[in-house]
Amino acid sequence: MTSSGTSSGIRIGIIGSAGRMGQAIAAAIAEAGATLAGGIDKDGDVAALAAHSDVLVDFSSPAALEGNLDAAVAAGVPVVIGTTGLEERHHFLIDHAAERIAILQTGNTSLGVTLLAHLVREAASRLAEDWDIEIVETHHRMKVDAPSGTALLLGEAAAAGRGIGLDEHSERGRDGITGKREHGTIGFASLRGGSVAGDHSVMFLSDGERVTLSHMAENRSIFAKGAVRACQWLVGKPARRYTMPEVLDL
Amino acid sequence: MTSSGTSSGIRIGIIGSAGRMGQAIAAAIAEAGATLAGGIDKDGDVAALAAHSDVLVDFSSPAALEGNLDAAVAAGVPVVIGTTGLEERHHFLIDHAAERIAILQTGNTSLGVTLLAHLVREAASRLAEDWDIEIVETHHRMKVDAPSGTALLLGEAAAAGRGIGLDEHSERGRDGITGKREHGTIGFASLRGGSVAGDHSVMFLSDGERVTLSHMAENRSIFAKGAVRACQWLVGKPARRYTMPEVLDL
Amino acid sequence: MTSSGTSSGIRIGIIGSAGRMGQAIAAAIAEAGATLAGGIDKDGDVAALAAHSDVLVDFSSPAALEGNLDAAVAAGVPVVIGTTGLEERHHFLIDHAAERIAILQTGNTSLGVTLLAHLVREAASRLAEDWDIEIVETHHRMKVDAPSGTALLLGEAAAAGRGIGLDEHSERGRDGITGKREHGTIGFASLRGGSVAGDHSVMFLSDGERVTLSHMAENRSIFAKGAVRACQWLVGKPARRYTMPEVLDL
Amino acid sequence: MTSSGTSSGIRIGIIGSAGRMGQAIAAAIAEAGATLAGGIDKDGDVAALAAHSDVLVDFSSPAALEGNLDAAVAAGVPVVIGTTGLEERHHFLIDHAAERIAILQTGNTSLGVTLLAHLVREAASRLAEDWDIEIVETHHRMKVDAPSGTALLLGEAAAAGRGIGLDEHSERGRDGITGKREHGTIGFASLRGGSVAGDHSVMFLSDGERVTLSHMAENRSIFAKGAVRACQWLVGKPARRYTMPEVLDL
Repeated sequence: MTSSGTSSGIRIGIIGSAGRMGQAIAAAIAEAGATLAGGIDKDGDVAALAAHSDVLVDFSSPAALEGNLDAAVAAGVPVVIGTTGLEERHHFLIDHAAERIAILQTGNTSLGVTLLAHLVREAASRLAEDWDIEIVETHHRMKVDAPSGTALLLGEAAAAGRGIGLDEHSERGRDGITGKREHGTIGFASLRGGSVAGDHSVMFLSDGERVTLSHMAENRSIFAKGAVRACQWLVGKPARRYTMPEVLDL
Repeated sequence: MTSSGTSSGIRIGIIGSAGRMGQAIAAAIAEAGATLAGGIDKDGDVAALAAHSDVLVDFSSPAALEGNLDAAVAAGVPVVIGTTGLEERHHFLIDHAAERIAILQTGNTSLGVTLLAHLVREAASRLAEDWDIEIVETHHRMKVDAPSGTALLLGEAAAAGRGIGLDEHSERGRDGITGKREHGTIGFASLRGGSVAGDHSVMFLSDGERVTLSHMAENRSIFAKGAVRACQWLVGKPARRYTMPEVLDL
Repeated sequence: MTSSGTSSGIRIGIIGSAGRMGQAIAAAIAEAGATLAGGIDKDGDVAALAAHSDVLVDFSSPAALEGNLDAAVAAGVPVVIGTTGLEERHHFLIDHAAERIAILQTGNTSLGVTLLAHLVREAASRLAEDWDIEIVETHHRMKVDAPSGTALLLGEAAAAGRGIGLDEHSERGRDGITGKREHGTIGFASLRGGSVAGDHSVMFLSDGERVTLSHMAENRSIFAKGAVRACQWLVGKPARRYTMPEVLDL
Repeated sequence: MTSSGTSSGIRIGIIGSAGRMGQAIAAAIAEAGATLAGGIDKDGDVAALAAHSDVLVDFSSPAALEGNLDAAVAAGVPVVIGTTGLEERHHFLIDHAAERIAILQTGNTSLGVTLLAHLVREAASRLAEDWDIEIVETHHRMKVDAPSGTALLLGEAAAAGRGIGLDEHSERGRDGITGKREHGTIGFASLRGGSVAGDHSVMFLSDGERVTLSHMAENRSIFAKGAVRACQWLVGKPARRYTMPEVLDL
C-alpha cells in the first residue's frame, strides 16, 4: 500500500471482479472518481493486487477468505467484505485479521438500507408495544427464499430497538384461521413478481395511526455504490472491525 | 309498500338494527337523505316493518333469512341482503324469493371495492401471463382470518379475468425456501396491526414495470353507505336477483 | 392541585371542552384510564377547574391564554397547550409562566407525527445532499391551505437535520417548465380529496434508491390521545417549558 | 417488404437507431425474438431500410417524418411512430399515409401505462363526481417540466371517463391559501428527485374510502419493449391509423 490515495482518488482492488457484483463495483468506482487498481478472480494473485491498492473489496467466496485476509494483512491494506454465506469460523478469521488492519464486513452495502435499519431500531425503541410491527418486502420472481435477508436484518433492528429476541417473536407465513394478532410479535410478508430489485417496508401500527419506513431499490447498482463508499471511508482507519452503520456515522 | 318514496327520500327498514352494521346504516340513511322506516331485531315484527318500507336491508343472521324473505315477498318489498355466513340452502331461498321481488345479495357493499374488483378483472384479462399477480391486504389486529374475504374476492376477479381457477393457482403463506415463483399463480399476503379498517392492493408485476390497483377504507361507514345506495338503486327494479356491480352499472 | 393522581388515574381539566378537540379529549381521557376533572369554555371558571385538576389541557383560543396561564400558575397545575394561532406575545407569556409551572406547548400532539419528525431529522442529518428531499401530504377536500402545517413541521425537521434554513430551500407549487430540480431544495406537494384525515410522506431520493418515511392518520382521535399522554407525562415534572419529542424521550 | 416474417421473427427497422430509445429498441428486439433489420439515423437511406423490413419504428425527429412516411408508403411497410413534439401538420401527414399503410402513433409505448389509462377512464366513468380525482407523479431530478406528459395523458383519460374537458377542470401547482377543493376538478402534483424512471398514481377519493390506480417504471426499457410489441402487432394489419390501446385489445 502506498499512501498516495485521497478519499476521492483512492485505488480500489476487486477480489471477485468477474462476478455480477464485481462488475458493478468496477462501474461504481469510475462513477465515484476513485481508481480501479485491478481485479482478480479464482487463482488470481491477491498479494500483487494488494501491493498497489489502497483498499480491497472482496465479493468472492468464503473459501477464498483466508488467503485474501492473509494477503491484506501482509500488505497492510484495509478490506471491505461483502461475501455472503460466511460461517462462524470465517467471522473468527475476520476478527483475527482486524487486529492488524481495518475490516468492514456486511451483508448489505446499500446506504439506504443501512440508514433504514438504524431508523427502524430508533422507532422501535421509542414506541410502546401497542404499536404492532409488520415488515413486507417485494422481490423479483426468481428469488427462492422468503423473507429476504434484508427483511430479516430490518426485523433484527426492530427487535433490538424493542429489546426482544426476533426468533421468539416472529410471525411468518400468516394464512388461514390465525386468531387475532399476538401482542408483541413482528410480522413478515413476502411478495414476488416481475423484476423488482427490492422493496422493503416496516410498518408500525397503532390505534388510529401508522408510521411506515420504506426503502426501494431501482436496481442492484446501489449495492456497488455503497461498497465503494465503504472503501473510501475505510482507508486510513485504525485496525479493528467496522460496520456499515459507521460509514453513515450512525 | 306504498309508492310514495322517491329515490332520494325512500323509506328503508333495517333488519338487524341493533348490530354494528345496523347502526351504521341508520346513520348512513340520514346522510343520504333517505328515511329510516324503522328497525327490528330478533323477535321483531318484520311484516309490520315491511308494510311501511320501500325497501328492506338485512344484516341480521342466516337463521332469520327465511322469515325475512317471506315477509318481503308478502309485502312486495325489495331486499338488500348483507348477512354473512350464508350457505347453499340460503342462496336457494334467495333465488326462490327473487322470482317475486328484487333482491340484491352481496358479501361486500363498498362501492370502491366493487369497482376495484371490476378493474382487477379487466386488467387481468388484458395482461399476458408474464405479469405476475400479487394481492396484499392489511387489517386491524383483531381480525382472525387471512387472507380477508375481500382479498379472496379480488383474487376471484383476477382469476376470472385470466380465465383460470383461483383454488388451483393460489400461492399463500409464502415463507422459507420457496423456490422461484411459479408461473401463473396469484399470490396472497396479509398484514395485521393497529386499527386498520381495510387496505387492499392488487399488483401486476412484469419485467421493468408494475401496475397496482388499491382500495383503502378509512372506517366501516363506507359499507353502510354502499348498502344504502344499493337500497336506493333497488327500489322499482323488476323481480330478480341483482349484484353490487350492477349498482355501479359495471 | 392535590397529589392524589397517579399517572394512570390523574385528573385532567379541559379548557375548550365544547370544541371538536375538547370533545375528542374527553373521550380519550376515558380510554386512557384517566379522570375527567371537568371542562370549561368561554366565560368558564378556570380557577375552579384548576383547583381540582392534576393537569390542564388547553385547546381554546389565543385570547384566553393569559387568563388560563394565570389560573394554572396560581394553582400550581401544569398545562398542555394545543391552541393554534399563537403569536410571539403568547409564546412570551408561556415562557414566563413556565418559570413557575411545567408547560408543554405544541402544534401537533400526535405521537406518530412527533416520532416521524424525529426520524426525518435523523435521516436528513445522515444523508448527503445528493439525496433529494420531497414531502407530499394528502388531506380532505375541505382543507383550505397547502402545504399542511404538519408538512411544514416535517420540512423544518429535514432542514434542521441538514443544517439549512427551510425558507430559502423550499420548492413549492411545482408546475410548468420548471427546469431541472435545484440541488439541495426540499420539495412540497399537496393532494386534496375525500375525507382523508392526514397522510404525510417524506422521501429521500438518490441514484437508484429511495427511503420514504410516512405517517397516516385514520382519524383525528390520535391527536386527542397524544394530548392525554402528554398530560400524563407532564404531571410531576419541574417547572419549565417542554416539547412533544420529550414525551417520547426523543 | 417481404411476407416472410412471423409475428415472433419479424424484421424491424429502426429509424433513429443511435438515440437512447433507438438503442433500447435494438436490445428489446433481440429479447423479443424478433430480427433487427437494420437502423438508420439522419441522412440514412430509409427506402433501403424499408425494403428489407417488415415494419419500421420511428423515434427520430418531426423534421424527418415526411420522408420516412413517403418511404414506408412506397415500400408498403407499416410504421410505429414514437417521435415526440409532433404538431398538427405532422398528424395530417400521418392520417394521409394511413390511407395506404398501417400506422400506430403514440406518445407512450408502455403497455402498463396504456392499460392504466384505460382503467382510469373506466373508473372515472363509473364513479360519481363526489369522488375527487388526484394525479401524482414522481420523476428523476433532471426532468424539466411538470406534470409529466404521462400524467396529463392519465388526466385526459379521467376527464374523458367523466365526460368533461381537462383544461377547464385541472388544478395544478396547489400552494398557499387555496380555499377548499373545488368540486369536480382533477388535481396534479409532481415530485422530483433521484433517478426515478417514472411513477404515476391516480387517486379517486370519497368519504371514507379511496381507490388508487398506479404504474411504476423501473427503467426506460419498458418503452422499448412496448414499441417492439406494437411492431409485432401492427404487421399484417390493414391500412389505417391505430393506437396503443388497440395493441392490448382495449
